[in-house]
Amino acid sequence: MSTTINVPPGLRNVVVTETTLGDVRGDEGFYHYREYSAIDLAKSKTLEDVWYLMFEGHLPTAAERARFVAELAPLRVLPDEVSAVLPAIATAGATFNPLAGLRTALSLLAAVRGLPKLWDVDQARRKADAMLVCAVTPTILAALYRLREGQQPLEPRADLSAAENWLYLVTGAEPTAVHAAAIEHYLVSTVDHGFNASTFTARVIASTGADVVAAVAGAIGAFSGPLHGGAPDRALASLDEIGTPDRIDDWVRAKVSAGDRIMGFGHAVYRTEDPRSLMLRDIARGIGGDLVDFATTVEQRIVDVLAELKPGRNLYANVEFYAGVVMELCGIPRAMFTPTFAVSRIIGWSANILEQSTDPKIIRPAATYVGLQPPVPVPS
Amino acid sequence: MSTTINVPPGLRNVVVTETTLGDVRGDEGFYHYREYSAIDLAKSKTLEDVWYLMFEGHLPTAAERARFVAELAPLRVLPDEVSAVLPAIATAGATFNPLAGLRTALSLLAAVRGLPKLWDVDQARRKADAMLVCAVTPTILAALYRLREGQQPLEPRADLSAAENWLYLVTGAEPTAVHAAAIEHYLVSTVDHGFNASTFTARVIASTGADVVAAVAGAIGAFSGPLHGGAPDRALASLDEIGTPDRIDDWVRAKVSAGDRIMGFGHAVYRTEDPRSLMLRDIARGIGGDLVDFATTVEQRIVDVLAELKPGRNLYANVEFYAGVVMELCGIPRAMFTPTFAVSRIIGWSANILEQSTDPKIIRPAATYVGLQPPVPVPS
Repeated sequence: MSTTINVPPGLRNVVVTETTLGDVRGDEGFYHYREYSAIDLAKSKTLEDVWYLMFEGHLPTAAERARFVAELAPLRVLPDEVSAVLPAIATAGATFNPLAGLRTALSLLAAVRGLPKLWDVDQARRKADAMLVCAVTPTILAALYRLREGQQPLEPRADLSAAENWLYLVTGAEPTAVHAAAIEHYLVSTVDHGFNASTFTARVIASTGADVVAAVAGAIGAFSGPLHGGAPDRALASLDEIGTPDRIDDWVRAKVSAGDRIMGFGHAVYRTEDPRSLMLRDIARGIGGDLVDFATTVEQRIVDVLAELKPGRNLYANVEFYAGVVMELCGIPRAMFTPTFAVSRIIGWSANILEQSTDPKIIRPAATYVGLQPPVPVPS
Repeated sequence: MSTTINVPPGLRNVVVTETTLGDVRGDEGFYHYREYSAIDLAKSKTLEDVWYLMFEGHLPTAAERARFVAELAPLRVLPDEVSAVLPAIATAGATFNPLAGLRTALSLLAAVRGLPKLWDVDQARRKADAMLVCAVTPTILAALYRLREGQQPLEPRADLSAAENWLYLVTGAEPTAVHAAAIEHYLVSTVDHGFNASTFTARVIASTGADVVAAVAGAIGAFSGPLHGGAPDRALASLDEIGTPDRIDDWVRAKVSAGDRIMGFGHAVYRTEDPRSLMLRDIARGIGGDLVDFATTVEQRIVDVLAELKPGRNLYANVEFYAGVVMELCGIPRAMFTPTFAVSRIIGWSANILEQSTDPKIIRPAATYVGLQPPVPVPS
């Protein structure tokens, strides 16, 4: 009989693997991609630069960047077999579910392209497949949204950066430089964030040797779970609910006494202010306006009231709170807030899949059976 | 800084959760669903009985069985919004990929039905969603196959049992009693099997509170990985490759010296003969014929040669080997061997999702960062 190993619930702090992709230091309010502060990268590099960094292990030279960008452009275009089915996917169901739509479309893409199993091909081919998946995801998500709204999808534009192209595809207009920079900061800052549940899911599936889309489709599923986090529209919905500054305290106290979570506050790992939140608050303030003033007032009051009601818990605004504000300021419709998160995080999932592919060992833990002791005779 | 916990690679023997669904005793060649030997169940109960056992915790009374079967019948019928898109899914790509097709169609179904998040609903609603997913899966898989072959899909038949209906949908003919019993034994014996990678994937995704299809779609992805196992067509392809009894030894020795895995032999957990293999061999022998004679000869020689070449490894035929033989005897086309496995295993995944739903705690392990120490200043 093999000896089982008992660990804390939810595998908390249990080390599954080694990684060179990055880490989160929850007590320091610091996270990094490779050897660089993720926030420093967000403030100074493009999404393509960081995408390259995650896939290749180093920031690109000018020549490498040019080659990478040229390689990406045609991959943004959706194959005809997938675009033919997108209207049916986009309009399915009473409520719009862009993540289910993305998973459906990528799953179809995998069938169309006959994606190879990870162990059957070399790292170059795996990277090419991951590049395709990451490049086509914004096209799919924006097309789903426009089709759902009764509009024609737009063609991706090779002359725009990844961040500009995303804003263009979703809003239908070329973004201002300020908006493009704001969203680029956001996208870079959300590419990866330690070993969260969706990233872990991607790695478990990759560990079986399945194809890139199999792993990404599972990650999208985990990402869609409310305990995963990453739904900036929920935080903005709270701002709407509160309405005016004089109602903040009552709203928070009612939430806390009802035992409800306050969306946009608290984090599984950070015990400090969320570094992404700090950056996004600065970006929002740089753009300015009534929404930003109200949001900063709400943030401060919520933090204060939570400190009073839940002392010692160190509950601060997380990435969701100001992400929602920034996206709203940039003209992204609320239905596309979480999809915007997915546009960058899919790069992180893919980098994790690529790393997992180099260690062909299945992730297969155990469970303890606690039911009636077998074998009980089967009744006839 | 939180203290990380180091465990064996691949989380081997690391206990993630408690379960009352079943377990595998690898050293005893025994596995069970709830308190019953799975093999005893396979030999005496229907798939519907065991499905009920896994979902409800006890075998059904006659009245419960009747109600369950009546509830299932309409759920087998594919919604129009999904059948409309199936031809495009079925014919996508140069090679037929029924698992990618199933994942695509279920993903679309989730959007069509607007499946609720697990934590937003009670266990009764979660069960209803899981029932739908399990009931409609054979319809989807068989339709994909027939569409790919240029044939019209058949309507599921309420007057047939789940096992009979599956054979009918795939082969186009009502099965003989012998074939229906053989496939029913197989389906019951593969409903669940401990904490394998696809089951674990389903539970990780469920632990985020995502919907049933999000979790099942991830499980299908893990299931499609070559390290997961569960591809009975590979074992049968080996029989074809060997061709005649006099070539067995050379074939095995060539495989072993090339370092290739021999499909259908060896198991991650069993150190004995695989109890599913023993049952399926008996079933195959009961049907009889040249293929069965050849398969038993090959099995014995492979076990003997492996015992000589890899002493102490206890490599025996696993479920794949005779599963392929039994399915071939029952007229299932090879492209539908692995999908047949999925038809039963989706019930096990669903039971695990339902169990995980009662413990709303996210599964979120850790990784150790082993790259260059950050923060390195970002080059301009």
